[in-house]
Amino acid sequence: MAKKIKSAPTKRSVAPKKTKSHKPVILITNDDGITAPGIKNLVEAVKDLGKIVVVAPDKPQSGMGHAITIGQPLRLHKMHIFEDVESWACTGTPVDCVKLAVDKILHRKPDICLSGINHGANHSINVIYSGTMSAAVEAAIESIPSVGFSLLDYSIEADFTGARKYVRIIVEKMLKAKLDKHTVLNVNIPASPVELLKGFKICRQAYAKYEEDFIERNDPHGRHYYWLTGEFVNFDKGKDTDVWALANNYVSVVPVQFDLTNYTLKAQLEKSWK
Amino acid sequence: MAKKIKSAPTKRSVAPKKTKSHKPVILITNDDGITAPGIKNLVEAVKDLGKIVVVAPDKPQSGMGHAITIGQPLRLHKMHIFEDVESWACTGTPVDCVKLAVDKILHRKPDICLSGINHGANHSINVIYSGTMSAAVEAAIESIPSVGFSLLDYSIEADFTGARKYVRIIVEKMLKAKLDKHTVLNVNIPASPVELLKGFKICRQAYAKYEEDFIERNDPHGRHYYWLTGEFVNFDKGKDTDVWALANNYVSVVPVQFDLTNYTLKAQLEKSWK
Repeated sequence: MAKKIKSAPTKRSVAPKKTKSHKPVILITNDDGITAPGIKNLVEAVKDLGKIVVVAPDKPQSGMGHAITIGQPLRLHKMHIFEDVESWACTGTPVDCVKLAVDKILHRKPDICLSGINHGANHSINVIYSGTMSAAVEAAIESIPSVGFSLLDYSIEADFTGARKYVRIIVEKMLKAKLDKHTVLNVNIPASPVELLKGFKICRQAYAKYEEDFIERNDPHGRHYYWLTGEFVNFDKGKDTDVWALANNYVSVVPVQFDLTNYTLKAQLEKSWK
Repeated sequence: MAKKIKSAPTKRSVAPKKTKSHKPVILITNDDGITAPGIKNLVEAVKDLGKIVVVAPDKPQSGMGHAITIGQPLRLHKMHIFEDVESWACTGTPVDCVKLAVDKILHRKPDICLSGINHGANHSINVIYSGTMSAAVEAAIESIPSVGFSLLDYSIEADFTGARKYVRIIVEKMLKAKLDKHTVLNVNIPASPVELLKGFKICRQAYAKYEEDFIERNDPHGRHYYWLTGEFVNFDKGKDTDVWALANNYVSVVPVQFDLTNYTLKAQLEKSWK
């Protein structure tokens, strides 16, 4: 018999509300899991800007894209890992975390949702595979302006100094700007010392992708398996892309949308596919 | 010790090639799993239009979005479930299936990739959560024109007559049209008798989404859990949307793109975020 674990509050519990000083409610999540250094750095970078609530996966969820959990139940466990910050570990995907946070923990839409700081790049096509960015997109679908942050350094010991500086700059801008409620920004930070960063650039998503390959081996029982790997290739020579900005020591900021309609092709097919 | 199971061919094996009649190579996948009636109907609908190769998940993968498998190995198992059609069950996600098919089974890009026929709707925002559509988008990222097909009927005993008719119409158009290699179409078919279907309509993605709720219960061990549910709400009153078309007995065809840049917001931020 499993021991009882404290679960998330029900609708009758007191939900976080704006304090007397009207501090914004900031929901924080990620895809590397609640114990990753990246989310700790994100919490610390914005802690004084609002009432922070963390709802993040209980294990790494990189590459989960916009996956949601349909076929099995989800659980929430109260954590005590950030000083003076309400935090919950969720057994689901990053997108599940956003859905559960809004519906079962906050019982309201937060003023903003922040995701990350991801350990590793989410520029160009990575926006589609990334759990970090999918959590941010999910928030925007739910009418919550959001930002996903990623540092171009996979290391568990990455230096988040530059990332924290730009997290703060961008979150302060977002909170002041009163942007559309469906706004999503994909922010990537070069893995350079903070003094070398040249500022941020508003960019478009580069057409750059992985040229796939799979490592093929046999397991200890003689059965064949494949393991995804791949080489990143940039096919896009534009100087207005996130890949260009990052290569030139700018923080890249790509505004993202969830209307996937290809309007150019739509117009073309309306004429030619009668 | 696990018994040996025949695995996918290595690079030295003979890959499917265009036959003397230059039949197109058609890759077929889905997210409901290789044993679902929907994929069987898709195979049968297009079987004579080219050389068919099926690579599909070995279990249901609905709601997996664009998830890829990074943290564990993948396996391929040769199946014999479609008459005279090469088919492989893959332990990964729909997107993994496309990657493995191109890289390790076909050893070339197929001429077209078809995904589905999904049991249930993938119109409007569902395009983002859908494994069916994510497989099609992955193909287009890899420069393979693709179509995802979904029937608005979840039932395992759904009637695919109308769906098969429009699969054939659209695949024949795609094969003739010489569309851009990054073309993706999201095709949804109403769950109406074939004689009531009025034809297809080129549409945009409706802004319609699920108003989330989670069922809360205790498991047999007294531990609390949440299970995703939700009510579909259409916020979009446009008559040019997929939701409108389907409600009016048209097959909806939405051209989809994977450049998620919000260019309107990009222009706005370039001016205001100096």
